[in-house]
Amino acid sequence: MEFRLGCELAYQLQQPTPFLFNVEVARTPIQAIRHEALAFTPALPQEAWLQPESGNRYLRVVAPPGRFVLHYEATVSLAPGLDDPAGIAEVPAGELPFAVYPHLYPSRYCQADRLTPFAQRTFGGLPGGYARVNGICNWIHDHVDYRAGSSDEQSSAMDTILDRAGVCRDFAHLAIACCRAMGIPARYVSAYAWRLDPPDFHAVFEAWLQGPTGGAWYIFDATRKAAPNGLVRIGIGRDAAEVAFASPFGAFEAEKPRVWIEAPGAAEGAITTAAVRVEG
Amino acid sequence: MEFRLGCELAYQLQQPTPFLFNVEVARTPIQAIRHEALAFTPALPQEAWLQPESGNRYLRVVAPPGRFVLHYEATVSLAPGLDDPAGIAEVPAGELPFAVYPHLYPSRYCQADRLTPFAQRTFGGLPGGYARVNGICNWIHDHVDYRAGSSDEQSSAMDTILDRAGVCRDFAHLAIACCRAMGIPARYVSAYAWRLDPPDFHAVFEAWLQGPTGGAWYIFDATRKAAPNGLVRIGIGRDAAEVAFASPFGAFEAEKPRVWIEAPGAAEGAITTAAVRVEG
Amino acid sequence: MEFRLGCELAYQLQQPTPFLFNVEVARTPIQAIRHEALAFTPALPQEAWLQPESGNRYLRVVAPPGRFVLHYEATVSLAPGLDDPAGIAEVPAGELPFAVYPHLYPSRYCQADRLTPFAQRTFGGLPGGYARVNGICNWIHDHVDYRAGSSDEQSSAMDTILDRAGVCRDFAHLAIACCRAMGIPARYVSAYAWRLDPPDFHAVFEAWLQGPTGGAWYIFDATRKAAPNGLVRIGIGRDAAEVAFASPFGAFEAEKPRVWIEAPGAAEGAITTAAVRVEG
Amino acid sequence: MEFRLGCELAYQLQQPTPFLFNVEVARTPIQAIRHEALAFTPALPQEAWLQPESGNRYLRVVAPPGRFVLHYEATVSLAPGLDDPAGIAEVPAGELPFAVYPHLYPSRYCQADRLTPFAQRTFGGLPGGYARVNGICNWIHDHVDYRAGSSDEQSSAMDTILDRAGVCRDFAHLAIACCRAMGIPARYVSAYAWRLDPPDFHAVFEAWLQGPTGGAWYIFDATRKAAPNGLVRIGIGRDAAEVAFASPFGAFEAEKPRVWIEAPGAAEGAITTAAVRVEG
Repeated sequence: MEFRLGCELAYQLQQPTPFLFNVEVARTPIQAIRHEALAFTPALPQEAWLQPESGNRYLRVVAPPGRFVLHYEATVSLAPGLDDPAGIAEVPAGELPFAVYPHLYPSRYCQADRLTPFAQRTFGGLPGGYARVNGICNWIHDHVDYRAGSSDEQSSAMDTILDRAGVCRDFAHLAIACCRAMGIPARYVSAYAWRLDPPDFHAVFEAWLQGPTGGAWYIFDATRKAAPNGLVRIGIGRDAAEVAFASPFGAFEAEKPRVWIEAPGAAEGAITTAAVRVEG
Repeated sequence: MEFRLGCELAYQLQQPTPFLFNVEVARTPIQAIRHEALAFTPALPQEAWLQPESGNRYLRVVAPPGRFVLHYEATVSLAPGLDDPAGIAEVPAGELPFAVYPHLYPSRYCQADRLTPFAQRTFGGLPGGYARVNGICNWIHDHVDYRAGSSDEQSSAMDTILDRAGVCRDFAHLAIACCRAMGIPARYVSAYAWRLDPPDFHAVFEAWLQGPTGGAWYIFDATRKAAPNGLVRIGIGRDAAEVAFASPFGAFEAEKPRVWIEAPGAAEGAITTAAVRVEG
Repeated sequence: MEFRLGCELAYQLQQPTPFLFNVEVARTPIQAIRHEALAFTPALPQEAWLQPESGNRYLRVVAPPGRFVLHYEATVSLAPGLDDPAGIAEVPAGELPFAVYPHLYPSRYCQADRLTPFAQRTFGGLPGGYARVNGICNWIHDHVDYRAGSSDEQSSAMDTILDRAGVCRDFAHLAIACCRAMGIPARYVSAYAWRLDPPDFHAVFEAWLQGPTGGAWYIFDATRKAAPNGLVRIGIGRDAAEVAFASPFGAFEAEKPRVWIEAPGAAEGAITTAAVRVEG
Repeated sequence: MEFRLGCELAYQLQQPTPFLFNVEVARTPIQAIRHEALAFTPALPQEAWLQPESGNRYLRVVAPPGRFVLHYEATVSLAPGLDDPAGIAEVPAGELPFAVYPHLYPSRYCQADRLTPFAQRTFGGLPGGYARVNGICNWIHDHVDYRAGSSDEQSSAMDTILDRAGVCRDFAHLAIACCRAMGIPARYVSAYAWRLDPPDFHAVFEAWLQGPTGGAWYIFDATRKAAPNGLVRIGIGRDAAEVAFASPFGAFEAEKPRVWIEAPGAAEGAITTAAVRVEG
């Protein structure tokens, strides 16, 4: 499926301020960039970096005082694997690819070590594999309210268990923590999310499972607010601490970001019920 | 029903050490002491105090170096009200007796303020009154493992939500926190508990509800390990911080406490399914 | 010294709503009420209660829909003991009056049990007694910023250690927790506070120490914002959980409270450096 | 300086159990391996992996039931840069190498986001650069007790601020959290540590600073228990969650690890006071 997407971020600055951006779409085996344009107003020298272990694309600028705008747009073609959920199993921890291990460890907002008793009591009885990760998403959907403003930048999976409310970032953190607590590697994904309403940067997650093609990352949206086959990856990381779309190093005022994504050729009903394999 | 109960506490001390004890059975409208004897070995001068707002009975001694033993035994007659759970309602917060309000507030180990979203999402849909408090006990029984050694003196209701394991004290704390979060006054009770196996000091709780005789404290055991009509009250308080059976002020070594309670005349099946009204 | 003080609290309600108020000045051995008037607009039937163990005075009304105002004013004469700080010692825990023990225990916002290592490492080397409590206040004053909006109703002493910012309530909580962790009984006090700028309800605390007249409660203001001999007590409790000036049981909109206190006959420099003994 | 070092790890297993080990010394610009031998008893097929972003070396085996031993020994030559601390500055966040950014983010045991107010209040007034990182180590050394058994695997920097006690891992976590909170990238290092007594695997940390050769990682030992020019790196990571010397995937019993390191040619006084530059 082909998507036209983009964002516009605007800031007011009092003094020259460095910014690190991660808004460009990642290049992955299933994600091809047909066209792409990024512009700063005023125009600025840029440093670009591709993080080898993640494929995340970073841009750094030093923005001048005054109003400052980043405009990004891209046309992206997405061709994920669509697998039968029934055949997707867990990989025993002793057999994981080495590069996957870091996504088993607890992280700042996903305290899998502390949540292990909760996760094992709650999800230990579920069938393994895709069904278990799906069951984790179902539990979160049923027990946590999605409510803007109910959490903040320091909210973690432990808080969400208690507060029973959060936003996409909190849903992803809790799901990731529960997966890791069950021995399933999981990582945080920032994305342009088709059919997310209102449109915004979205937070979802990927879990490493054993599908028909072998070990692979499958993508999940614990909020159930976007189409799983319409998630265009920007960045991956251990959790939100590592995946910010914009990191200003200094004081700033931000306007509300504009984010959009459309699938011009998609039929209305084109939301898949298959497992969406995005890598590996 | 009549109970013969008691305890023996033994310590080894290196130097004179003050102790505050709260092991004597409280006198309440439903709890009459037929016979009672308390002795220290070696014999010691004692200060006794009855706390007016709780009825808790305290003894203070300064124990000498060496081995030191408290022996307590009593015969207690218990005549709680046995009400039909179906007719027991909640009292609107604006209509509570003034003296009951402190048991609505959060306390050290019962962070009702923090647990309000959890409690309202989990127990808000239950029928009110006795049924809701019973539902809280059921939830704890189903979602938390009773396991000796799984918690410590600093464990609180917030921890138990995450750790999903605890002992009687933790079960009581979580139940109290959830009741208060739902607007139901609740207090911590230390007790001699008939049929608790192995015998030990037990922690249960009371909730203020509207029964056939008006507002009253009803007793509950979230662990479901003792007979609700065989709970002989020692002390009440906001939580375990206020209800210790022994508080030594100095270094000590303790032997394992011996605690016992028997109901010589009780039939085997004498465990009630009625709501047990203990005060008010 | 004589003080004229009062408050005005106004609310907008959609429906009949019960309120519990604790704004009236307490009667204590050092605090005499010369004149007092409390009025509700519209006029309302009231229930009054004096809590025996604290002396706190509560009023309960069911407020009607619409705008609703409580107006309170009083003339209070304050005659605290003024002792030489140098002669004020700690009371060994084994020798405290029985009624004082509850103020040694940890409470919701004063987790003395958890803060014991911090307190003992930080305050263990100070001289005991009044000097130690004063040293605790000094440490808080030097290490915590007083900043409106930096904390919320769930903030506790543990948070303040980490966040290094708070309001009067947080300063009192941290001081109380540290006192209790050092074996010094301490309790939370809400007060009208002379010279507090801007005027507001204030939170201070009392510690139980051994002065020239025996064991007594001495008052402290960890914020150092008010005159210690101009603190007129409203309520006492284990912490802020127990001492709210207004508890509405239902939805409401509140206007900003007006609070005032003046000492018409006081000289400008009338701030004492003595230890202020308020009870016992 | 040349070091002879090694370790011996022994386990008892009931069933075949996969293990992931990270005990082999890393190859770095300043760390050359002269000789190395690793053997399993019984002999086992091994999978080896070098993590590209860290240089950490991992070994995976499936150990059979029974007793199972890993023996490792190496001779390593260490030639760190020894710089004058006075000339070592901080790098503004907007000018860091891209690959260094992940070490600015908060992680599971280093909640730099939460500790920012504490760190800025405590370390904001120190001179910048090496002196500030050294000041952070001094503060930890002065305010936290090193005590075996005082923490556990879930202890984090937030806990150590409150508990004021920990082991090398906790010292490193707190130092890393404070560095990141001050805008200084920092990472966790597991090491063979010369002169650590008793010998054990050690946890230290590296901070990214601007020295005479440009941006570089400098190594610090917040415990002050080992010689900073005798720290032989095994692994690096965001915190201890990512750097375990052994990860068994299944039940096991472990014997106490044996760890050793000697510097045969070193003079007794060979502990440097220079800043030790290990990379970059």
